[in-house]
Amino acid sequence: MAIEKLRKEETLEMRKRFIGQSCRLFYSDDPVKIVKARGQYLFDENGKRYLDCISNVHHVGHCHPSITAAAAAQMDLLNTNSRFLHDNIVLYADRLAATLPEKLCVFYFVNSGSEANDLALRLAQQYTQHDDVIALDHAYHGHLMSLIDISPYKFRKLSGQKEWVHVAPLPDTYRGIYREDHPNPGQAYADTVKDLIEEVHRKGRKISAFFAESLPGVGGQIILPQGYSAKVAEYVRSAGGVFVADEVQTGFGRVGSHFWAFQLQGEGFCPDIVTMGKPMGNGHPLACVATTVEIAEAFTANGVEYFNTFGGNPVSCAIGLAVLDVIENDDLRGNAKRVGAHLKDLLTKIQTRHQTIGEVRGVGLFVGLELVTDREHKTPATETAARVVKRLKEEDNICVSTDGPWESVVKFKPPMCFSMEDAELVVQCIDRILTDMEASDS
Amino acid sequence: MAIEKLRKEETLEMRKRFIGQSCRLFYSDDPVKIVKARGQYLFDENGKRYLDCISNVHHVGHCHPSITAAAAAQMDLLNTNSRFLHDNIVLYADRLAATLPEKLCVFYFVNSGSEANDLALRLAQQYTQHDDVIALDHAYHGHLMSLIDISPYKFRKLSGQKEWVHVAPLPDTYRGIYREDHPNPGQAYADTVKDLIEEVHRKGRKISAFFAESLPGVGGQIILPQGYSAKVAEYVRSAGGVFVADEVQTGFGRVGSHFWAFQLQGEGFCPDIVTMGKPMGNGHPLACVATTVEIAEAFTANGVEYFNTFGGNPVSCAIGLAVLDVIENDDLRGNAKRVGAHLKDLLTKIQTRHQTIGEVRGVGLFVGLELVTDREHKTPATETAARVVKRLKEEDNICVSTDGPWESVVKFKPPMCFSMEDAELVVQCIDRILTDMEASDS
Repeated sequence: MAIEKLRKEETLEMRKRFIGQSCRLFYSDDPVKIVKARGQYLFDENGKRYLDCISNVHHVGHCHPSITAAAAAQMDLLNTNSRFLHDNIVLYADRLAATLPEKLCVFYFVNSGSEANDLALRLAQQYTQHDDVIALDHAYHGHLMSLIDISPYKFRKLSGQKEWVHVAPLPDTYRGIYREDHPNPGQAYADTVKDLIEEVHRKGRKISAFFAESLPGVGGQIILPQGYSAKVAEYVRSAGGVFVADEVQTGFGRVGSHFWAFQLQGEGFCPDIVTMGKPMGNGHPLACVATTVEIAEAFTANGVEYFNTFGGNPVSCAIGLAVLDVIENDDLRGNAKRVGAHLKDLLTKIQTRHQTIGEVRGVGLFVGLELVTDREHKTPATETAARVVKRLKEEDNICVSTDGPWESVVKFKPPMCFSMEDAELVVQCIDRILTDMEASDS
Repeated sequence: MAIEKLRKEETLEMRKRFIGQSCRLFYSDDPVKIVKARGQYLFDENGKRYLDCISNVHHVGHCHPSITAAAAAQMDLLNTNSRFLHDNIVLYADRLAATLPEKLCVFYFVNSGSEANDLALRLAQQYTQHDDVIALDHAYHGHLMSLIDISPYKFRKLSGQKEWVHVAPLPDTYRGIYREDHPNPGQAYADTVKDLIEEVHRKGRKISAFFAESLPGVGGQIILPQGYSAKVAEYVRSAGGVFVADEVQTGFGRVGSHFWAFQLQGEGFCPDIVTMGKPMGNGHPLACVATTVEIAEAFTANGVEYFNTFGGNPVSCAIGLAVLDVIENDDLRGNAKRVGAHLKDLLTKIQTRHQTIGEVRGVGLFVGLELVTDREHKTPATETAARVVKRLKEEDNICVSTDGPWESVVKFKPPMCFSMEDAELVVQCIDRILTDMEASDS
């Protein structure tokens, strides 16, 4: 097939005409048309190559040939639904179980992280017979109605906060209520959840679930302080609720040292429900909920079938299995650990000469560069962050994006084949751009 | 790859261990393991061939080689998200627009019919600034929390009816409140919606949307009476609401004479929102919402981005385009019309000798066989229907299933390549089984 079928202006014109404008384009002033990709590289219609620092979905690299081969082979053989017995779904569940603590051994396959979080909420409410949810400030758990309700990032701009939703402070040790200088921020932030639970109880309400991304993304690439999750889980369980770890962005080895980001909180911590999505199918719509036998049994006990038309079909599971193989065979966790450490190290080095860099944080290939206008007040450098993103694209053909409540965090969540050289290039370019901006500002 | 990787007992044992039991198996007493499929045929691990009368998802036939080829070619080239410009999404939207009335020209691509219906509900509520929904009795619109709320089929067994949800009678002219002998059932059933709207208004509430499958499936393969939808749309719009046509099961030419089942209601009728899903990607997780410029603009006006990670990606759209090509090139609508008519005709013929067959209804390859214990009282023959399903599988290797509030409707919604001979075979087998059952019952 011809790679480009329409001229770019025509694509843009049709896009405006046919696709809901709520679906936004990157670089909306000058959107990019991508026609080809490989590994960590994107190519536009003129063959210009972009280094991709943000496609966490294309986890093992864009268009990995062994994923395509696995998909095509299974598509040619069979793609039916999970009401028939098939080996792929059970073999895939078995492989996923091996990555998780023993008690997380029951799986539900779905088509998106949003579907996974919606189901997690149903499971939690059914199991606990409670309604209320605690979510972290600035959190985003998906685009479905039920998830907008538990996502402060969305509901504050839309329908507002429901009476059954409660917002706990984001455990951000850079600009949150407890910072690096606190002797035990993990405990202190966990205690805010404890206090919130007590407040909920005083209202005569009951907690079904605490929902949190294992590393809050939209919140600003946040690393939860040590001890936080285990303590929160203890408080939430005492209140009869369950702990849902949203690993939709962070799972499948992105953090390098562990397969799941929640494992950064130590072996003493295990969630009751884990949701997964984005990287799971390397771009194929595939997501999952893992939970315990007890929670699954409570869900079964309601006597109502859960049927997801496409969820867990043989093709999706073949792709999921192939992704796991590539993560192992290409040692992508090892790569994430090495390259992520190098990237963080290089960014930390240039921090000494750029007052704009307030903090460098991250783990594995999940890294954030927090920009501030002054380090003392930590005022978010929103505009600077936007200019860095724009100049990296225009001058260096590098795609990064921003996040955080003030869009002041430049984030890195590249395909896991990101190399040492890629890390060096992007830091060198950021260094040059910041130097240049500082010179023209002074 | 080896077709079977585990012995069947092992697959079953792992399925029980790893997959939530709410995800049920067909023929749960003796589940079938399917390892291969082609066209309208499924093959088990021993090579036994089943005639598939129910896989409406595998619309153009199981494992159609041109769908696999399109998927593999695009997977090898690029699979990124809709924040980058790409030709496939706009070309696909353009092709879909050509099948719809002119005013339905804005598209949102998602991953499942459930995601589509959830978004439709958001669009309706945002546009109308009203909350309430009218749904048909026994309706099912998806597995998400928001959709369980508007699906009497589910909420009656689960959370119960919410105050913002109102249930209109199912316009079933066989066993509903107005039947074949009524001079104008379309108008009469539409008036029940009018009455319901007045009741809602008396409560001081306002209608955002009327949701209905264009041919209610779980309700029992129901054909809406002529004039119903246009009248309902008139009443709903007068109340400031919108008409959502759920075409998740019925779209893409299944009815033969038209591309969309709502078009059976005549040219005077056009919904405000159409949702589509199951057959759209021939098994690939692909779904969509189509709506008007006005509704899309109201959604954009809230200022909040709608981002669906996998929705509208280049691979999903390449598959969607390939499905449209096969429907056209293989004249599957023509086939659905011819074979569906033949199937209905043959079933009607055997109705004369089987008192158990209360009604044969359907259009194109969407056909239902309503079984009753006596024709006068139309008592649902639930057990007979279950036995027919079981015997067709065991004696004839034919897969059908049941639906309807009493599971008394044997339903046919096969891949669209279903042949005249397939129709003849299945009717001949049903004839034999019913004859045999009648003999042993007498």
